Amino acid sequence: MSEKSVTPNYSELFSPTDFRYTVDELKPILSEEAFVKYKAKVEAALAAQLAEIGVCSESAAKEIARSCERVTAKQVYAEEARIKHDVRALANVIRDGVSDAAKPYVHLAATSYDIVDTANALRLKDAVKRVVIPDLAKLENALILIALKYVDNVQMGRTHGQHAEPITFGFSISWYVSRLGQRILAIEKAADSLSGKFAGAVGVYGPLSLLVSNAEKFEKGLLVSLGLMPSEVSTQIVQPEPITDLMHSIVSAFGVLANFARDMRQLQRTEISEISEEFSESQVGSSTMPQKRNPINFENVESMWKKFMPQMVTVYMDQISEHQRDLTNSLSQRYLPELLVAFDSSVRRLTRTMWDAKRNEARIFVDTSAMKKNLEMSADDITAEPLYILLSNAGHPNAHEAVRKIVQRTISEKKSFLEAAKSDPEIARYIAKIPKNKWKMLDSPSLYVGIAPKKAKRVALAWQKEMLRFSR
Amino acid sequence: MSEKSVTPNYSELFSPTDFRYTVDELKPILSEEAFVKYKAKVEAALAAQLAEIGVCSESAAKEIARSCERVTAKQVYAEEARIKHDVRALANVIRDGVSDAAKPYVHLAATSYDIVDTANALRLKDAVKRVVIPDLAKLENALILIALKYVDNVQMGRTHGQHAEPITFGFSISWYVSRLGQRILAIEKAADSLSGKFAGAVGVYGPLSLLVSNAEKFEKGLLVSLGLMPSEVSTQIVQPEPITDLMHSIVSAFGVLANFARDMRQLQRTEISEISEEFSESQVGSSTMPQKRNPINFENVESMWKKFMPQMVTVYMDQISEHQRDLTNSLSQRYLPELLVAFDSSVRRLTRTMWDAKRNEARIFVDTSAMKKNLEMSADDITAEPLYILLSNAGHPNAHEAVRKIVQRTISEKKSFLEAAKSDPEIARYIAKIPKNKWKMLDSPSLYVGIAPKKAKRVALAWQKEMLRFSR
Amino acid sequence: MSEKSVTPNYSELFSPTDFRYTVDELKPILSEEAFVKYKAKVEAALAAQLAEIGVCSESAAKEIARSCERVTAKQVYAEEARIKHDVRALANVIRDGVSDAAKPYVHLAATSYDIVDTANALRLKDAVKRVVIPDLAKLENALILIALKYVDNVQMGRTHGQHAEPITFGFSISWYVSRLGQRILAIEKAADSLSGKFAGAVGVYGPLSLLVSNAEKFEKGLLVSLGLMPSEVSTQIVQPEPITDLMHSIVSAFGVLANFARDMRQLQRTEISEISEEFSESQVGSSTMPQKRNPINFENVESMWKKFMPQMVTVYMDQISEHQRDLTNSLSQRYLPELLVAFDSSVRRLTRTMWDAKRNEARIFVDTSAMKKNLEMSADDITAEPLYILLSNAGHPNAHEAVRKIVQRTISEKKSFLEAAKSDPEIARYIAKIPKNKWKMLDSPSLYVGIAPKKAKRVALAWQKEMLRFSR
Amino acid sequence: MSEKSVTPNYSELFSPTDFRYTVDELKPILSEEAFVKYKAKVEAALAAQLAEIGVCSESAAKEIARSCERVTAKQVYAEEARIKHDVRALANVIRDGVSDAAKPYVHLAATSYDIVDTANALRLKDAVKRVVIPDLAKLENALILIALKYVDNVQMGRTHGQHAEPITFGFSISWYVSRLGQRILAIEKAADSLSGKFAGAVGVYGPLSLLVSNAEKFEKGLLVSLGLMPSEVSTQIVQPEPITDLMHSIVSAFGVLANFARDMRQLQRTEISEISEEFSESQVGSSTMPQKRNPINFENVESMWKKFMPQMVTVYMDQISEHQRDLTNSLSQRYLPELLVAFDSSVRRLTRTMWDAKRNEARIFVDTSAMKKNLEMSADDITAEPLYILLSNAGHPNAHEAVRKIVQRTISEKKSFLEAAKSDPEIARYIAKIPKNKWKMLDSPSLYVGIAPKKAKRVALAWQKEMLRFSR
Repeated sequence: MSEKSVTPNYSELFSPTDFRYTVDELKPILSEEAFVKYKAKVEAALAAQLAEIGVCSESAAKEIARSCERVTAKQVYAEEARIKHDVRALANVIRDGVSDAAKPYVHLAATSYDIVDTANALRLKDAVKRVVIPDLAKLENALILIALKYVDNVQMGRTHGQHAEPITFGFSISWYVSRLGQRILAIEKAADSLSGKFAGAVGVYGPLSLLVSNAEKFEKGLLVSLGLMPSEVSTQIVQPEPITDLMHSIVSAFGVLANFARDMRQLQRTEISEISEEFSESQVGSSTMPQKRNPINFENVESMWKKFMPQMVTVYMDQISEHQRDLTNSLSQRYLPELLVAFDSSVRRLTRTMWDAKRNEARIFVDTSAMKKNLEMSADDITAEPLYILLSNAGHPNAHEAVRKIVQRTISEKKSFLEAAKSDPEIARYIAKIPKNKWKMLDSPSLYVGIAPKKAKRVALAWQKEMLRFSR
Repeated sequence: MSEKSVTPNYSELFSPTDFRYTVDELKPILSEEAFVKYKAKVEAALAAQLAEIGVCSESAAKEIARSCERVTAKQVYAEEARIKHDVRALANVIRDGVSDAAKPYVHLAATSYDIVDTANALRLKDAVKRVVIPDLAKLENALILIALKYVDNVQMGRTHGQHAEPITFGFSISWYVSRLGQRILAIEKAADSLSGKFAGAVGVYGPLSLLVSNAEKFEKGLLVSLGLMPSEVSTQIVQPEPITDLMHSIVSAFGVLANFARDMRQLQRTEISEISEEFSESQVGSSTMPQKRNPINFENVESMWKKFMPQMVTVYMDQISEHQRDLTNSLSQRYLPELLVAFDSSVRRLTRTMWDAKRNEARIFVDTSAMKKNLEMSADDITAEPLYILLSNAGHPNAHEAVRKIVQRTISEKKSFLEAAKSDPEIARYIAKIPKNKWKMLDSPSLYVGIAPKKAKRVALAWQKEMLRFSR
Repeated sequence: MSEKSVTPNYSELFSPTDFRYTVDELKPILSEEAFVKYKAKVEAALAAQLAEIGVCSESAAKEIARSCERVTAKQVYAEEARIKHDVRALANVIRDGVSDAAKPYVHLAATSYDIVDTANALRLKDAVKRVVIPDLAKLENALILIALKYVDNVQMGRTHGQHAEPITFGFSISWYVSRLGQRILAIEKAADSLSGKFAGAVGVYGPLSLLVSNAEKFEKGLLVSLGLMPSEVSTQIVQPEPITDLMHSIVSAFGVLANFARDMRQLQRTEISEISEEFSESQVGSSTMPQKRNPINFENVESMWKKFMPQMVTVYMDQISEHQRDLTNSLSQRYLPELLVAFDSSVRRLTRTMWDAKRNEARIFVDTSAMKKNLEMSADDITAEPLYILLSNAGHPNAHEAVRKIVQRTISEKKSFLEAAKSDPEIARYIAKIPKNKWKMLDSPSLYVGIAPKKAKRVALAWQKEMLRFSR
Repeated sequence: MSEKSVTPNYSELFSPTDFRYTVDELKPILSEEAFVKYKAKVEAALAAQLAEIGVCSESAAKEIARSCERVTAKQVYAEEARIKHDVRALANVIRDGVSDAAKPYVHLAATSYDIVDTANALRLKDAVKRVVIPDLAKLENALILIALKYVDNVQMGRTHGQHAEPITFGFSISWYVSRLGQRILAIEKAADSLSGKFAGAVGVYGPLSLLVSNAEKFEKGLLVSLGLMPSEVSTQIVQPEPITDLMHSIVSAFGVLANFARDMRQLQRTEISEISEEFSESQVGSSTMPQKRNPINFENVESMWKKFMPQMVTVYMDQISEHQRDLTNSLSQRYLPELLVAFDSSVRRLTRTMWDAKRNEARIFVDTSAMKKNLEMSADDITAEPLYILLSNAGHPNAHEAVRKIVQRTISEKKSFLEAAKSDPEIARYIAKIPKNKWKMLDSPSLYVGIAPKKAKRVALAWQKEMLRFSR
């Protein structure tokens, strides 16, 4: 699946979202052309609803619907250049395509933002549910399979960048399976909560009340025909919070991707080398250092997050609109699609970095022997925790401090901690009380992984099941 | 209810949250002293749980519980100064208060963040559910009563700061009743979703698995005893998203307050004067202009929002923690309580600006005669919309443009629009087809409020009912 | 000068910067095509410098320069698709256009970011100095002429949205003349401080030191030939602070524009009506309210500011790059041109909203009679300040409080303040001591404008002179 | 020098800046008490200036000055509680301390923000110049000495977290010496550009013009007596850009600290271990893992940056103030001192982490043998770059690609790259043309550090000289 089917016009473009990081599948939904189509679709639904209650004829509504289907962005922009109003321009273009008998019913009783806000809800919902969530589900599924594959492979757990206690690699992935899975559900919920409106210029259904007896029923009928519910109260615009929530769900999911990307690129450090991105035959790592193999895809995702996360500040500022609205959220909202495209582009990048869909196997290289080697570096030190726990459980009143002193000394002196501990008379007294089956973890620290494999497996399988309903 | 019972030590304080905008009721929950208490409470629950499954004796657990109750921040800080670790310092202080027999079971099998993250979830949840939501409900109830009181009072609706079409003042308040009500529910949901953890240093229940047969059951038992559920998968820390969601719910609710405050202060402009803050006998408006009466409380709330909204960027950055955690979210998370205090302080400020709780009536002054006067300014122009709708409905194929041309001309020439429209031969032809009962709105534009009163009332009453369960 | 000469491909575009708000003059500098040209220009300068010191022949350098001129983005992207490295792709395309003898000297001793960072400094500097600053100077000149035209027109000064004391409209504009003027100088300084680098993959001039005896001299020669100076110390990348400073200068100038736009649209409120945007014959204000005339250009500018200001957070995050660099600033930096385009587009919008360049006169409509009418509303109240000052100066020990009490009472009772003050026996005693020439301001409050006209004029003329060097 | 001399009242405090991260030396400048003192100082300077031009008597001015010195925050807050205006409260408290003859001259002709903005400029400037810059100079000096000490110690340079080419540790520190040094100069410049104002309620010197013949001269005299210059044009407030610039200089310097902290903590990773924070005898690294030694100070600094960097968004929003000002920047500005305290606290933390002032030597532990060991890991691979450069220089038309293929193959096959290259017939042909003295770097890659030592030394010494003028 290529993401760049059309050669971009590089000499006209500034935003990399429009050439370098574009997503083909989102163009029919989120491009400017698509926006015009969505607005025309709402105009058509309005005419249909007017016919439904007898304000206009069925044939007028059908004429309008046909005209709506033919509208192009180019036409609308040309008309807007003349009259300086985008939605009236759209209405004029639609009107130009219908008979005089149908003309009065184009855009009748609508204010611009009845059309714009409803179209925005529709297109954002479509983008999320038809493309973004299915793409997220693919990434989630890839992570699930990797978690399951490496469910037993012991890896050193790291806190503060320091060796801590052992985990398994599958377990470390299950942390992301769980976080990403929950974000997918949050995104779905937020998309389903987007609402439209048809309440007129100041939200009181003034124009509509001139034409119909139950304005709210008309609004609901129109919106339900499009798959939306109305905002509980509107002014000229829908309430801003549902879009704010949707963007939060996206941006917080982006944070999960960025965290994952950070982890993966750190594990690819030369000294750690537990992971590496695939590197093709012809690929160049550096224009001057022929030997370089860099975690460029993980870096790219973190960079995309850095670029788009702060846009939440704009979204929060756009909650404020004076009285029955000012227009200072109009331009800024036009940039919301770019955020979705950037996010989806990062989801796809991570998926193809982690997983080879054609061969249905991991594309990321996991070096389990490097994991073992790294664990080995601290195998002796990490017994300090289980020893302290077992000593405490054996009744040592001050085990943490006793163990801490020995381990600090042996780290400084580069001696074996466990040997030193065993030969400490006071500690030895309590060691004698430790059951054999517990002690084995001190001799083989790679056994000290708690319930990591079991839990990772259960979590991965649960999310695998949950994802079934998102498969395209 | 005073918010400043203790005289602050002004020469020691930098953050206005600690003196100027403090909230007394949040001190027992969110102060640094309270944080120590919450952590000690988790330590006590741990000991109780260890006793529950027989790792330690009941009496040891009780000893520990008593010691936990006595711990003070001062003691813990003193110990931390010595050993440079805050949670081990807490454990040491607790240990110092128990017998040697109980000592091994203090903090046993816990990693610091088992305690810290669980305590954070507890205190944030308590702050939100015991103070913030009840405070929000008071504000919501005040807005509801104001909406109901002014449900029929006609006000000019404004878009782009320009007169648009009429609404009622009660309707304009119902917009905030609905938005704020929904945010209250979102905050409640987010608070209920906060989770704790007891999964050890890297999330695999290593230490716990040395002591108990079912580590996850132990974790769940411990957390449920505190009123929390466990994070689905943890590393050293709980998943960051629940706190991210909570902060989003707070910050987006803050946006609603800021929007409301903006509206109110704009309505207080000298030229508009539809609203004014109460001004006491002794109050000074300006140190040099004795006549000034400023909307200082509304300005204050918008300023508080500007200060704290960007902290969401920190919250989003804190989603990233390397591997099984790094500590770069530790300090930054210590500032989350300040955000809650600032928000709650603004909620209280708005409530007391709008509502006099003692006399149970509005404190804000609403000048309904100014509203009428302002409406009158544009009474003629605003008939353009209903006329265009009625002409269209009467079959005029191009009513918007026809009306637009007349209105633009009459605005320029400062003539009556409606008279000019009536005397336009082509328009007159369609006017003849307009039913009388519709025409009355053109003669009395203040009737052109659609369903504003009915809808405002329904919305206000629905939220009044919803708020019942939050009354303290 | 049209800003949209080419019909955009609406079905391919997501970012409004690429169609709706584009700036033609910035395309040859900041488009993706232009970026490739700038990088090729640096490659050509490298070859020239290598020839200069005798590493390669003059003819090889010339061959390379010619090949650099022919490079297109399309070619480079095609090669990048193959080898997955953007700058090596560029080098390969250049190489393909030269003889085998010249091939070794293409990109020799360069690391990618020697090229990229230097090209970035060049194109940002060119964009700022060739387009953005001249555009800003046009706006500044328009504001200067408006300030001068209305230097004496009295307007009510407003604080907290409340009438305060009189100013002149020209003075209120001079506030923006001064602020914007100083931002222009700050932008210029920041652009001149951008630096390039040619220090190799980790900043120690490793490759270059293999070829030349004085690597820093070589770097300086190369950069000076392009009009830049080197970063004092580089790693793989230049120091991030100069670009951070440039973006700060732009974003803080954007804040000045946003403040100006906010002021202007508030002055256009129906109740105030001191200002209005030009409204053309065919222009539509609302798709449903034919009478609407909205401050859409001012709203647009504030909205653009809301969209792009938060990108500073990205810029600050991009200061962090691990060790000798990680790549997480690569993608995010590709979005810096969009910020400049958005800013410049807003500068142009404000200029054409305020000023008609063809007729060389103000396009914004300033209603000086509305200003007088608004001033009249509070003419009585605003004498409170000068009266308090004059009473104090006449020795009244408590004038502010005495005046405050009278004015609060007369506001409540809707009586004349000045009459009440004059008839207050205690005050009257001090009034007698006030010189006649001071008293006239109390009788004619529009005289109470301090030194507004004089100061506004001086400031406007000073900046007019300063702007001379920026005229294109 | 202790930073916590007074035991904080933990049960009253929410913001960690007021207890955990406070800075004693900033309390006399930036605490709330100090703010009152600074405002009183401006009031005293006003009285002195009034006396200077003969509006009041010398003795009145002296009375006022004495009263100003005695004012406390507690008094002012008590009065503010009564009259709800902070600056009039201050004026009242000062008035209470003087005779009736002096009373009229307290605060005469001043608007609140003449006092507040001037006091803010003064205290921010004092904080920066008396504490923050000297503290930064100490950190800079520590880094300089470390750079000089390790100027020759070879370290692997890292890009993308991957081994790149060698540098020296001193060179890597010189990158921060240069960046931090330049930020110090930027902060100094921004602090020197802060300005005050005495232009009255709307900036036109209305009140002052009633009393003096040259209002601007009076303003300048007053401000110069305090060490400030006036804002070119003011409204009720000074222009916001100078404070915006100061905060940018601080926040961008914070970015340099955060980058440094990130680097240091990554170098402390167990697998890298080139650096470690000092760890005291009694220090605890983890409450459960007795062996842990974490980079907590570096983590702390990055976390502080994450908390406070986004406050720039507030600062940018505060540029917008309607007309002659609204009050929505009042509360938010009260939080600027907290940002300075947080920054300074991080500067101090880094200084004491890096440097032992008592023993005048590095406190940070630098493991030069680990650096060598890590370099050794990639000693073979890193010869690819110099080999490619030398081959190109020897005329190989396609050296990068030829070398890339060999190195990729040998990495995959885990063979020696250099051996493989030497045995490649085509490459060997060009190797023969490489001069011996160049070749030695291929045999000893640790020689391939370009001009790292020389440049690091020069840069360090230059900044050492520059810092001389900041030593306290």
